[in-house]
Order: sequence, then C-alpha cells, then structure tokens
Amino acid sequence: MIRKKQRGQLIVLSGPSGVGKSTVISELLGERPDIYFSVSFTTRKPRVGEADGINYNFVSQETFEAMIERGEFLEHARYVDHYYGTSLRLIEEKLAAGIDVLLDIEVQGAAKVREKCPNAVLIFIIPPSFEELSRRLHGRNTDDEEVIEGRLKKAREEYKEIPHYDFLVVNDKVSAAAAEIAAILTAEGCRTKYRLNLVEGV
Amino acid sequence: MIRKKQRGQLIVLSGPSGVGKSTVISELLGERPDIYFSVSFTTRKPRVGEADGINYNFVSQETFEAMIERGEFLEHARYVDHYYGTSLRLIEEKLAAGIDVLLDIEVQGAAKVREKCPNAVLIFIIPPSFEELSRRLHGRNTDDEEVIEGRLKKAREEYKEIPHYDFLVVNDKVSAAAAEIAAILTAEGCRTKYRLNLVEGV
Repeated sequence: MIRKKQRGQLIVLSGPSGVGKSTVISELLGERPDIYFSVSFTTRKPRVGEADGINYNFVSQETFEAMIERGEFLEHARYVDHYYGTSLRLIEEKLAAGIDVLLDIEVQGAAKVREKCPNAVLIFIIPPSFEELSRRLHGRNTDDEEVIEGRLKKAREEYKEIPHYDFLVVNDKVSAAAAEIAAILTAEGCRTKYRLNLVEGV
Repeated sequence: MIRKKQRGQLIVLSGPSGVGKSTVISELLGERPDIYFSVSFTTRKPRVGEADGINYNFVSQETFEAMIERGEFLEHARYVDHYYGTSLRLIEEKLAAGIDVLLDIEVQGAAKVREKCPNAVLIFIIPPSFEELSRRLHGRNTDDEEVIEGRLKKAREEYKEIPHYDFLVVNDKVSAAAAEIAAILTAEGCRTKYRLNLVEGV
C-alpha cells in the first residue's frame, strides 16, 4: 500500500446547466467507486427523477439560512433564485481519510473553494457548442422557453470564468469526458508534492 | 477533430539507471503509438540487445562534439563518462505538427529542457526501493560490481532533483507505471490553456 495518499484530492466540477454533468459524474463514479461525491444542499425543488440525498439534499430556505448562520458551508451561493451549498464537515472527514472528494458546483462556489483550498483541482465541462447545449436543454423537457433562454444566457456568463479553471473537458461523448476526468484525477495523484513520502533519503 | 491540439506536448522522463524506463516506455508507446519517442544521441557503447537508431543514436565522441559546436542539441550532458544529447530540429518539427514528444533524459538534461521549454511536463520514475534497484541492476548481468555501485551512488544523487519534477511514478508494476504516465499525458492535454480555442465567445 505504498501508493496510499496521505490526504484525499478535492475536485471541483463546474459546467453550464444542460451540459450533462450528472451523466458524466455517474459514468465516472461507476468506474471509480473510490471517489466520494459530495451531495450539495439546495433550496430548489427536485426535478423529475431527482431524489433527496442522491442528486441534492433538498432543504427549505429557512433551514439553508440557519446552516449559513452556523458556518456549516465550505461555500454557498445563490444561482437562478435558489441557494446551493457544500457541507464543510463531511468533505473534511473524507479528505482527511485519504478519500478523493468530487464537488459539482457553479462558478461562484468554485472560486470560493479555490480560495480556501489552493490544492483543489478545478475542471470545467462544456458542450461541443452552444447550439448543442440549447438542443440538450430543450430535449430535457423540464423547462419552458423562458427558463431555457435564462440558462443559455447564464452559460455565456459562466464561460467567462473558464480561464480560472485548471482543466477543460468537452462533453461530446459521455464516456470520453468521464475518461478524461478519470485521467486528470489519476495524474493529479501522481504529483511529486503528494508522493515525496515514497522517496527514500529525501 | 475539435480536440486536435495546436501544438504537441513535450514530456521528459527521467529515472535512475536500472529502474526499467525502457520497458515502461515500450509499454506506453504500445498503447499510445501517436507519441513520438525522441531517440537520444550518445557516445556510449550499445549494450547487448540495443540497436542504433532505436535505443540511441550511437555516435563517436568527435561526431558528438561537432554537433555541440553546430548548436544541434536542445540539451546535452556528460553522464558516467559519456555524452548524451537530444536533437532540437526533429523535436521541434513534431511539436509544431501537434505531436506529443517523449524524451528519456537524465536530470541535468531535464533541468535544461525545463529552462528552455517551460510548458514541458517532467516525470521522474523511481523503483519501489533502492534494494529493488540494486536487485534489478544485478539481474541485468551487464555491469560488474563496481559499475553497479557507481550507478546506485548516482541514483542517490539524482533523487535530490526529484522535487523539481512535476510528477513522480513508482515502477512497481510496468503496466501500472505506463498507465499512470498515459493518464498524465491525457490530463496535460486537457489543460484549459491548451483548449481555449474550443470555447465559443471567449
């Protein structure tokens, strides 16, 4: 077990609504069950097929604001009229145990994580094109035209933050995108700074 | 072909004599035939099983020194009484054509490459232990005891340079080491700075 990491890697995944993050994450976790996916807290309502504790921890606005008060979030942000936040305690426990932790958060939250955790690896996922993103959002059949237009506009704003991300993955084919993210995680684990304990006499 | 890189990635691989670099490189190139392995020039004699133009370009000391004079090397260094050097022209052609180039060079050469090519990715390969390295050197049956002792001593010196390398790979199992290097190459190709051309409106 000489390759055991002393501390887990924190991985932040962002990308516009409709890019297919959840599908890519499912594929990735299927291949890498050792990764802990941190389920965010949100005040938005579950979409069809979404389950509490799996996709999000769905809570009321009152509960969320009480959690903010108690300092329970690594980061939290408002996005399209709802709160989204990441629990600090759970993540810290996993990282300390040497387990890699994956966060699915939007650009504001990602910026805060980078500030607090400089070793975090930030990955942004984009669709092959805006045209394709629009097609995916329409295909989801969950939002009306106005909401979709809002999401596309928001996506263009989020794109401005891409240069602050370490890695950029195009979700053209889900398996290829998941494989690239898996390679990024493997590579980050090979960084010399995390492995100096394996070097005799240094 | 939207993922085509504009320029190839330069990868530098170093590691002590006997660690099994050639075997790991063979395995890697078997899986990733798109990588161009740059064959170094050397003035040392071929070992049993080594072929000119495959393992090294074997040249005389006079030829090597004339090449230094003409500025034909990206880097060159003396190591255990022999010259080793990397041809600049060939590498530059491949990188410009978007092809990844792999160099197998020792620590002095690697430091020079890093200086001249700040985007180069430096990977150091170590054996699981010095004991195992000694075992591998003895098992090779090509060197007498004195030469082996010299190599082990040299290895300990080279280890001091490990903190200057981006990645550290342990060659415990060849296929695992090659897979880690392949993951590093994939990950480096996903760096945002190389992919901004894929982002609309940025």
